[in-house]
Amino acid sequence: MTETSAAPPKTMRASVLTGAGSVMLEQRPVPAVAADEVLIKVSAVGVCGSDVHYYREGRIGDFVVDSPLVLGHEAAGTIVAAGAGVDPARIGRRVAIEPQRPCRVCAQCKAGRYNLCPDMQFYATPPIDGAFCEYVTIQADFAHAVPDSVSDEAAALFEPLSVGIWACRKAKLTAGSRVLIAGAGPIGVITAQTARAFGATEVIVSDPVPERRDFVSRFGATQVVDPRTEDVTSLAVDAFIDASGATPALVSGIRAVRGAGTVVLVGMGADEIALPIPVIQNRELVITGVFRYTGTWPTAAGLVESGQVRLDELVTARYGLAAVGAALRADEQPDSLKTIVLPAE
Amino acid sequence: MTETSAAPPKTMRASVLTGAGSVMLEQRPVPAVAADEVLIKVSAVGVCGSDVHYYREGRIGDFVVDSPLVLGHEAAGTIVAAGAGVDPARIGRRVAIEPQRPCRVCAQCKAGRYNLCPDMQFYATPPIDGAFCEYVTIQADFAHAVPDSVSDEAAALFEPLSVGIWACRKAKLTAGSRVLIAGAGPIGVITAQTARAFGATEVIVSDPVPERRDFVSRFGATQVVDPRTEDVTSLAVDAFIDASGATPALVSGIRAVRGAGTVVLVGMGADEIALPIPVIQNRELVITGVFRYTGTWPTAAGLVESGQVRLDELVTARYGLAAVGAALRADEQPDSLKTIVLPAE
Amino acid sequence: MTETSAAPPKTMRASVLTGAGSVMLEQRPVPAVAADEVLIKVSAVGVCGSDVHYYREGRIGDFVVDSPLVLGHEAAGTIVAAGAGVDPARIGRRVAIEPQRPCRVCAQCKAGRYNLCPDMQFYATPPIDGAFCEYVTIQADFAHAVPDSVSDEAAALFEPLSVGIWACRKAKLTAGSRVLIAGAGPIGVITAQTARAFGATEVIVSDPVPERRDFVSRFGATQVVDPRTEDVTSLAVDAFIDASGATPALVSGIRAVRGAGTVVLVGMGADEIALPIPVIQNRELVITGVFRYTGTWPTAAGLVESGQVRLDELVTARYGLAAVGAALRADEQPDSLKTIVLPAE
Amino acid sequence: MTETSAAPPKTMRASVLTGAGSVMLEQRPVPAVAADEVLIKVSAVGVCGSDVHYYREGRIGDFVVDSPLVLGHEAAGTIVAAGAGVDPARIGRRVAIEPQRPCRVCAQCKAGRYNLCPDMQFYATPPIDGAFCEYVTIQADFAHAVPDSVSDEAAALFEPLSVGIWACRKAKLTAGSRVLIAGAGPIGVITAQTARAFGATEVIVSDPVPERRDFVSRFGATQVVDPRTEDVTSLAVDAFIDASGATPALVSGIRAVRGAGTVVLVGMGADEIALPIPVIQNRELVITGVFRYTGTWPTAAGLVESGQVRLDELVTARYGLAAVGAALRADEQPDSLKTIVLPAE
Repeated sequence: MTETSAAPPKTMRASVLTGAGSVMLEQRPVPAVAADEVLIKVSAVGVCGSDVHYYREGRIGDFVVDSPLVLGHEAAGTIVAAGAGVDPARIGRRVAIEPQRPCRVCAQCKAGRYNLCPDMQFYATPPIDGAFCEYVTIQADFAHAVPDSVSDEAAALFEPLSVGIWACRKAKLTAGSRVLIAGAGPIGVITAQTARAFGATEVIVSDPVPERRDFVSRFGATQVVDPRTEDVTSLAVDAFIDASGATPALVSGIRAVRGAGTVVLVGMGADEIALPIPVIQNRELVITGVFRYTGTWPTAAGLVESGQVRLDELVTARYGLAAVGAALRADEQPDSLKTIVLPAE
Repeated sequence: MTETSAAPPKTMRASVLTGAGSVMLEQRPVPAVAADEVLIKVSAVGVCGSDVHYYREGRIGDFVVDSPLVLGHEAAGTIVAAGAGVDPARIGRRVAIEPQRPCRVCAQCKAGRYNLCPDMQFYATPPIDGAFCEYVTIQADFAHAVPDSVSDEAAALFEPLSVGIWACRKAKLTAGSRVLIAGAGPIGVITAQTARAFGATEVIVSDPVPERRDFVSRFGATQVVDPRTEDVTSLAVDAFIDASGATPALVSGIRAVRGAGTVVLVGMGADEIALPIPVIQNRELVITGVFRYTGTWPTAAGLVESGQVRLDELVTARYGLAAVGAALRADEQPDSLKTIVLPAE
Repeated sequence: MTETSAAPPKTMRASVLTGAGSVMLEQRPVPAVAADEVLIKVSAVGVCGSDVHYYREGRIGDFVVDSPLVLGHEAAGTIVAAGAGVDPARIGRRVAIEPQRPCRVCAQCKAGRYNLCPDMQFYATPPIDGAFCEYVTIQADFAHAVPDSVSDEAAALFEPLSVGIWACRKAKLTAGSRVLIAGAGPIGVITAQTARAFGATEVIVSDPVPERRDFVSRFGATQVVDPRTEDVTSLAVDAFIDASGATPALVSGIRAVRGAGTVVLVGMGADEIALPIPVIQNRELVITGVFRYTGTWPTAAGLVESGQVRLDELVTARYGLAAVGAALRADEQPDSLKTIVLPAE
Repeated sequence: MTETSAAPPKTMRASVLTGAGSVMLEQRPVPAVAADEVLIKVSAVGVCGSDVHYYREGRIGDFVVDSPLVLGHEAAGTIVAAGAGVDPARIGRRVAIEPQRPCRVCAQCKAGRYNLCPDMQFYATPPIDGAFCEYVTIQADFAHAVPDSVSDEAAALFEPLSVGIWACRKAKLTAGSRVLIAGAGPIGVITAQTARAFGATEVIVSDPVPERRDFVSRFGATQVVDPRTEDVTSLAVDAFIDASGATPALVSGIRAVRGAGTVVLVGMGADEIALPIPVIQNRELVITGVFRYTGTWPTAAGLVESGQVRLDELVTARYGLAAVGAALRADEQPDSLKTIVLPAE
């Protein structure tokens, strides 16, 4: 038996990607709620670069959109129904969605690395539908409480913030760290703020676009550099986080790290990049990448509630469910940073 | 050959502990500068609880003051001479002193744990003299640069801040941590601020004295509790840092920690304390202690320069070198927090 | 639908603890198999000190046997039925049982610490029945494959071996480690062998009983000491693992650890033990305990299959299901080390 | 004042590299002994691939031999004189030489990473002379005791064993690990044995040469593969250690690692290698390199003394000091594994 507040409707509107460059608004059934799940009325969804990539190309690497797919995985909303195994007192609560469904039984899951679960079902990754729609389900423990002082849009952005938190954890940032971040797009800006929240005292951000450098100077960076004119390789930072996916940024960033420092690859770029192996060896650098995240939502809530990370100011455009196509093209505007889809509008 | 700015004098004033409760101002030779050392004109020295303990009892545990001893190990000053192996350009620079002389060749030193060096020579620990005097020497790499915006008094307090940093590192604090700190004396207040700098979003401080709770509420604590009337054992914190040395605080603090959490013993108290072993086992708690610090001064400088930790406001009294006895009794005043000795006055 | 080889019987024999000192053989229903479970015909079950304690006292601390309980949690057997969600090819396979049922959704489970799950259901812990019976169920991922060369009895003892593996992991043992183990009972002997498998080159075991010292000298120890006549406190080991639960052993063992070394509390003893706090602080020791284990069965299988750990030689007595009372009293014999219950006999 | 046993001679024989392909035996002064040093009569020196590379090319990357250089850095011998600050009781003791002289005062040294000291002076690295000579000096704490049961030649090989230990530490090998090692040259063979000593239960070694695969099968490998005919990318190992320096081995090895596994780059090869970035990201692999070692000699002594690692059997040729040129060309023989120079012959 599933508890509900008021009975949710039987059908809902959903924006569906039907092929490269084509999204259509459809009427779809509201999803059924399993015993360990909650049904969430979606209030806000961030547009991620991966959504844009699927929209433009119809694929990301081996992940191919070969049947209609609902995009969107940065989502928040309100619980409107609870599965039989879920505390019905949660109905009516605002939640931020961690858009993962790991198997919970494989060795990776049981070791605490559920992000590496080979049987993961992740929102908006073929063939799993995402959140550009009115209602979604998620297992109850992946619907995280949102503090009252945090907006729906900020709650949706707990997802990219989670990427930033995960990157900073992998980078082993702590009080006093000196870090270089390449790229001042949404992830770079969020990671810069997060690095400060981790106690980093020097947060150097490189980006070729002056407006982005200006923006990040107000959101986390203690110093900005233009990679076209400034050499970063002598910075001797404790950690380098690549949020650009640009090969030259990655290679020069590696050279910027002091002995025993850390490199975290966040941005997606070329399938193969020639790395300077002797530099990695002689400095005993530690190079790793991030793939989603585990256990970050409570931290995200704490950082936003306490004001250490500001997300609302990152939103540069908003669209209704009928205008998801426009939302997916919004990054063509030069001053675009973060676009939000509001399914209720 | 030793480089100097202007020749320092041959003799200096020093405040010497000659027995429990007795300090005398003496004229002593200015110390000679070894090749790897600098000579520092002392500008400010904090009074530590250990100084007070030596003054009152003439001993701390196995460390007995059986010959005259200069107290004081929280010190800052200006380099006035450099040993033959030291860059003379450092003369004239303001520095905060890390008051340690490890052997550098034992297994602990070479493993990066020089604080555990069995042959350590530490300021103001018998028979090594400290800094309640006009000039001291230290090996050049333990004289750390002070940012221009940081006062001499704050620079002296990099030492207790180092204790706080070391405790937070041992406690594995990071962005989003929830921590309980017992005791709102100088170390508790500094550790609360430091915990915030490490990204802790919940910093709960317990102290039975209302004035101390009020103070720490403005310096790091997000919540304060009165241990006489409030039970902390259900807090389920990630980490507990004892800065009180009080047995009941320690025992209840351990019970406040969630599974796999950390307990860091900073305060000095009883030689033996009965701990709840099944709690440690069943929650797999990690219990450790701090003994001084390694590699904390650059972090301290970064945290104070960036404003994440404020030290100047902690100073409640100042005394000249002739009044060190009064300085060592200043903590008898109920509103005393941190006392500074100014050797130049 | 549940797949089975040949239909298992409807009822089975089970040895039930009905009160302190009283076990009775009963006829009980064979348990039903949930979709994610397997049904196992039990071949061998080790007798653990905790079983003996429940038998003698009717309780362990807060865990009270207030209704009939099947003891036994060190078990191996053969899969005879598979739940609807389990690969039926597993039927017929020999397995070692990890006797845990964590919730898989709490923060501890999702962080990879399922042993600390507050909703854990663990074999032979009130009110959860154990394995002194003919058939048991467990979730499929907790039924671990047994190499062909490993006996049923050894497979049952993967459970105490898991305690040893977990203790060695917590102790951070690695190639070249020097470790002190207090107690040469079953856990001590297994941990000594495991320590060697982790690469420890010096494994010093203390036990007051000469026969136990002799035995462990052939199973892992490189040196044995009699704690009644030899002082261990100057050993300067990297790690101390207490497998005795004896207060004097624990206290002297802590003093035997070098700076920055590790103490792991495995044995169960007094509820409170007075620990030398300044030793913990001045040496920055890391003290922790073990509570069961996570992810150890595959390691156990590897260590036994490769011959690095020998378990068969530890078995000193065997009993059928009708003689579980005698099995639970077998440790009264002076040369008893490990007793096995064979449910099929 | 320097203590000596019998006065060492004033001059000694040394084999000097004077240019690519040219070594000459010279008479040189016996080096002076500083206060913190010992003078060692060299008994055995291993020939390393880096010695061969300097001999053949006159350079390794940025390190150019532009003045006469004594090669050899894998050395053991007997202390014949002790500096004023060294215990004279050490004279007459057999020692294995850790051929490093770090500065001990920089941030890397003080953090325990003295191998990354930017001011390191390392044997046989221009312009620092090595050990193909009769006498060498080293700071006393880098002359490590050799157990009586260990031969001079094995003691010399504590150096390549240290590389193996360091690689296994970086690879986080522990009991139960499954590791792939590429290359069955001296470092591969030593690392395979060391991996077993760390508790690895599956040690898979790849090498295209059948004789090398046969050899390593008796020294550590539990499985061997021919990379020309077998695909390693589906091995799903916990760690991959490249001891080959071969680009195809490195790239396929990375693909062989399971999620969250580790890659350690030991072999020296191309300056730039194209790595599959999405594999690193999607599996969150940790890639690092080794540069020499810290704190490995005591571990090496323990592993060899206990028989966990066998080094004597690796020696395939021996030469006197007059035949160092031949020693440096010995690897041209197909069955050559490890060549030793014996300066006393």
